[in-house]
Amino acid sequence: MSPLDRLTHLLGKLPGLGPRSARRVVLFLLKRREALLLPLIEALTETAQKVQQCPVCGNWDTQSPCALCCNPGRTKTLLCVVEDVADLWALERSCAYKGVYHVLGGTLSALDGIRPADLRIDALVRRVVDEPVTEVILALSATVEGQTTAHYVAQQLAETGAKVTHLAHGLPVGGELDYLDDGTLTAALNARR
Amino acid sequence: MSPLDRLTHLLGKLPGLGPRSARRVVLFLLKRREALLLPLIEALTETAQKVQQCPVCGNWDTQSPCALCCNPGRTKTLLCVVEDVADLWALERSCAYKGVYHVLGGTLSALDGIRPADLRIDALVRRVVDEPVTEVILALSATVEGQTTAHYVAQQLAETGAKVTHLAHGLPVGGELDYLDDGTLTAALNARR
Repeated sequence: MSPLDRLTHLLGKLPGLGPRSARRVVLFLLKRREALLLPLIEALTETAQKVQQCPVCGNWDTQSPCALCCNPGRTKTLLCVVEDVADLWALERSCAYKGVYHVLGGTLSALDGIRPADLRIDALVRRVVDEPVTEVILALSATVEGQTTAHYVAQQLAETGAKVTHLAHGLPVGGELDYLDDGTLTAALNARR
Repeated sequence: MSPLDRLTHLLGKLPGLGPRSARRVVLFLLKRREALLLPLIEALTETAQKVQQCPVCGNWDTQSPCALCCNPGRTKTLLCVVEDVADLWALERSCAYKGVYHVLGGTLSALDGIRPADLRIDALVRRVVDEPVTEVILALSATVEGQTTAHYVAQQLAETGAKVTHLAHGLPVGGELDYLDDGTLTAALNARR
């Protein structure tokens, strides 16, 4: 296989890219050797060499434990449980949360064969017992899998004495009532303030 | 800027990827270090080191002149002019063409300020004069820019004595008549066999 075919094949495996868009990316990179291809190789190499998963929360960072876990400005009594690092990054971009995190690494799913032992649930219970955590926020998706996982995690945390809360359901900011599904509308109505 | 931010920024510049999908790609790569991240670095590095533009036709390849130009099995009297290497690759995938190629590197465009000197038109005329070319196929897009370029190139080739042909317009294979635009329908009707 030629280098170009191998590169196209590998790029086509990335989420959001197929064989056609992978070929487009290859030509785009070849035409921008100095501006994009070489900097991209450097950034990928640096990422592969320096970035590792935080043993405490599961975030990716160049330092271990990660910058969020080491930050003395974060409230250590508040622990937010998320499915994936992408959710952690989304919460960080919102700047609305100042506690620490715990990444589960997925959701329970009978279909995909993901059992409690496959997620970082034991490590979560140990953290809540060992660290001075008073509230655990379950920021999991409002899907069947997410809610099943939230239910299971809440059960596991029942004996630790920490308060367990969930994200509120309701109208998205900027969302129009007319386009909202019935489930969300009912939840928003029931949780009215 | 952290390595992850730099990588996300660079990936977001690729065609088909925005900031959100670039973050998704970064996490996808981090989770598949051995299977994807390291092979991708290797493939990109090999591409940057070995792949260059063919000085004859403008194709990208590890050898110079490229494998197509060096292949004794290709008909050297038949020269196909394309806008971009992507078009050359598309023609090669179809396996319908056994001649050689010439990549212009774009189309004439007053709006984008692309003049004849910016394209490889002089090199094309020189090739048609120097090499034993009997037919030049202008495989350019059926857009205003593509057809303007085809017209200009045909003019430049008029004195070389080579026969200049264009791709046929008509009904795409598998296409339904009902969905075809009027221009293509008229062209297909006029060129009926």
